[in-house]
Amino acid sequence: MNSAKPLRWILCLFLFQTLSLYAVEKLAHQQTTPYIETLTQISTINSLMAGNFDGSFTFGDLKHYGDFGIGTFNSLDGEMIALDGKIYQARVDGKIYPTPDSAKTPFSTVTFFEPDEKFPVTGFSLEELKKFLNDKINTNFFYAIRIDGDFNYVKTRSVTSQKPYPPLVDAVKKQVIFEKKDVRGTLVGIYCPDFMNGLNVPGYHFHFLSDDRSFGGHVLEAKVNHATATIDKTPAFNMLLPADFSPGGSKKGDIDRVEKEPTAK
Amino acid sequence: MNSAKPLRWILCLFLFQTLSLYAVEKLAHQQTTPYIETLTQISTINSLMAGNFDGSFTFGDLKHYGDFGIGTFNSLDGEMIALDGKIYQARVDGKIYPTPDSAKTPFSTVTFFEPDEKFPVTGFSLEELKKFLNDKINTNFFYAIRIDGDFNYVKTRSVTSQKPYPPLVDAVKKQVIFEKKDVRGTLVGIYCPDFMNGLNVPGYHFHFLSDDRSFGGHVLEAKVNHATATIDKTPAFNMLLPADFSPGGSKKGDIDRVEKEPTAK
Repeated sequence: MNSAKPLRWILCLFLFQTLSLYAVEKLAHQQTTPYIETLTQISTINSLMAGNFDGSFTFGDLKHYGDFGIGTFNSLDGEMIALDGKIYQARVDGKIYPTPDSAKTPFSTVTFFEPDEKFPVTGFSLEELKKFLNDKINTNFFYAIRIDGDFNYVKTRSVTSQKPYPPLVDAVKKQVIFEKKDVRGTLVGIYCPDFMNGLNVPGYHFHFLSDDRSFGGHVLEAKVNHATATIDKTPAFNMLLPADFSPGGSKKGDIDRVEKEPTAK
Repeated sequence: MNSAKPLRWILCLFLFQTLSLYAVEKLAHQQTTPYIETLTQISTINSLMAGNFDGSFTFGDLKHYGDFGIGTFNSLDGEMIALDGKIYQARVDGKIYPTPDSAKTPFSTVTFFEPDEKFPVTGFSLEELKKFLNDKINTNFFYAIRIDGDFNYVKTRSVTSQKPYPPLVDAVKKQVIFEKKDVRGTLVGIYCPDFMNGLNVPGYHFHFLSDDRSFGGHVLEAKVNHATATIDKTPAFNMLLPADFSPGGSKKGDIDRVEKEPTAK
């Protein structure tokens, strides 16, 4: 028998095979495209403010939308920090816990962190850092911001809540405050433009995680020693509403009270 | 030469080939998943209100995000109707034009229309239709709504603008109004919850397109004879900001003036 014909078939199939694998590769890349340069949030800040603390999306699902961000946990059980693809829980006991993919979040904001620009930052308080960043960003867009380095001082808080859920403004009255001097770590920040009022927190919102994963939470004050600020401009916004979404609403000033003013420990 | 070996190779490659095609098929499906059950808008209504009428996204790109929706054109040149995957332009000359994929939009809202529920609707005015729909939808979510059938009466408007762009509230003072009796066609509607104020138009927003593609525009009044209302509940929201996005802002009542009150022809 002449073997020329089978060999021709082998070559033909091999060519098809190669083209198919190329197509798989190309499609696999495209598949991840929609969430690149996209800030994704679960629910809205006003819904959380109204006391909707039941987790609706698993952190396993959330990882499809980003590897970096901030948020909270089912029943408001701590402050969430997403950093380099891992999810950390800063609880009111002052400890940091890893988060199973099956755990759920009532409100979170994440993105895939894709560095656009880097700046050295030295000697800034949190307010000075925000002013510095205001000159570097276009305040009409969303940003993910990470500040990696040495901090002279970081003051964080964490929260918890029991059922029945109070409004967030009351829940944070039970916040626990933590302070740390001379700590290496990362400020994990999200910036939202003013037009996001009611949906997310307008302005900057930072959580902290120490390099040794022993300290963190929602940042109330900080003093940067030497660090690097890396910003990621994000032109697309994606909002996923839970099945039982209730939009809530909030009074003027409530978000400031929840995000900024610490109450006595 | 023994032909068994080449044949075994052919079978082996054929099996690989089949598995690869299956993978391509699977990935191609997953690729479209992110935009299923997602309402996507280009820019914001407040940016449009401020006179940002330069098109930023091509309709070719917009088609990746939906086959159904409403919007406007570069320089505010008419009312956009996206229906069954085609993009129509209702211009101030009263005619309907097909839209090339290369044309651009400054503001549009689209989704892939996936019917959830159908209802017969008879004898309703536009306001009665909205009240009827209020009882059928969960007003905390986004909806795409299409009303297909016979209309006793439809009153539409279209707009145009020249540079320099005026604010939208002034641009619509030059709107042209069209009326049609006894017309078969489709109301193409988007519903946005109240918390979308400033980003999109809260409540219902309808454009119309006649079955014979000769009449359409932004709907000011309508009287349904016999039609079917089909609703598509949409729990995810996606917002794409143009590279030169400017958020604008609007005074209370401006959106009502732009969307609802016709001025003299």
